[in-house]
Amino acid sequence: MNPPSSLEDLIKALRCLPGVGPKSAQRMAYHLLQRDRQGALHLARSLDHAVESVKHCSKCNNFSADEICVLCRSPRRETDLLCVVEMPADLLMMEQAQCFRGMYFVLMGRLSPLDGMGARELPLERLLKRAQELSCEVILATNFTVEGEATAHYLATLLRAQGVKVSRIARGLPVGGELEHVDSGTLAQAVLERRAVTE
Amino acid sequence: MNPPSSLEDLIKALRCLPGVGPKSAQRMAYHLLQRDRQGALHLARSLDHAVESVKHCSKCNNFSADEICVLCRSPRRETDLLCVVEMPADLLMMEQAQCFRGMYFVLMGRLSPLDGMGARELPLERLLKRAQELSCEVILATNFTVEGEATAHYLATLLRAQGVKVSRIARGLPVGGELEHVDSGTLAQAVLERRAVTE
Repeated sequence: MNPPSSLEDLIKALRCLPGVGPKSAQRMAYHLLQRDRQGALHLARSLDHAVESVKHCSKCNNFSADEICVLCRSPRRETDLLCVVEMPADLLMMEQAQCFRGMYFVLMGRLSPLDGMGARELPLERLLKRAQELSCEVILATNFTVEGEATAHYLATLLRAQGVKVSRIARGLPVGGELEHVDSGTLAQAVLERRAVTE
Repeated sequence: MNPPSSLEDLIKALRCLPGVGPKSAQRMAYHLLQRDRQGALHLARSLDHAVESVKHCSKCNNFSADEICVLCRSPRRETDLLCVVEMPADLLMMEQAQCFRGMYFVLMGRLSPLDGMGARELPLERLLKRAQELSCEVILATNFTVEGEATAHYLATLLRAQGVKVSRIARGLPVGGELEHVDSGTLAQAVLERRAVTE
């Protein structure tokens, strides 16, 4: 008594989603067919449309509907700083913080050998080309995770070898953070990377 | 700097999947567009095909490609027992256990007011009709969760009122189970529902 083959196909196809194993895929397929067939059809249309229309910006590598994205085309951005982030969501956070008016480069990943992401999987040549094109300072804004730190270290070595000025966003206590509640690793780094207080 | 609208649409559409919130939907969309566009297109096709071809069997309410499913059509099934399960996966488990040769009825859910599943959302009229059609004993094989138990209780009342003979699958220690390692609720039920030992 096997389920219909199109149902089995759907369960298999759902497993292309990250973090979805056989049990969740089955639950999702049942849910869609039982309670949300409209949603399933809409999802199918959205997948088609996104695959067809979403490209990568040739400048910053972010997702874009055009060859060059809105941000890279904007005349109001400063071109003396290039901020490297891991993912589009990080770029969005930077923009929401309204602390940066320069250009971006989105790696679309990080060095993570366990997930099959080595240096060759990252668009490093395009980053180098973009940095030389702008001949500007590169700010490394990858995450402060093990992978993000390794990526920043690797990129710094690579970029400095090409004579590019490189910096890393600061690490320390969060704004509003209390010493009593911060983790000891962060506190130790904040002490290590203390800044001189001038006038 | 917003993402392309087709990417935003995809992120919204992915939220029709159960257990997928805004963050997972974003992660899924990025993953598909960045690493698995083939998978995304295949998923779109599978969704279309499943929505189009997967129906409910008019007898047992299980997913089926035909009006009446293979199991309900089979002449080798006995028609003197009707086993009620919550989901197609439960039916599959029953079949794999090879302990039951009768007919099934799949509720496609359970009474669960918190999830918006009341008695009206379950195909109770069809279950009643099917039980009367077969005029057989109904075995309630819903889960031994709070919702499954409530569903079994509700169904038992309903079916008995129509003069249908109703039973519930047994609860007790699992085969190979040791008293030392079983939870106290199960042990207490096993004592309460003990069976007379006859020659």
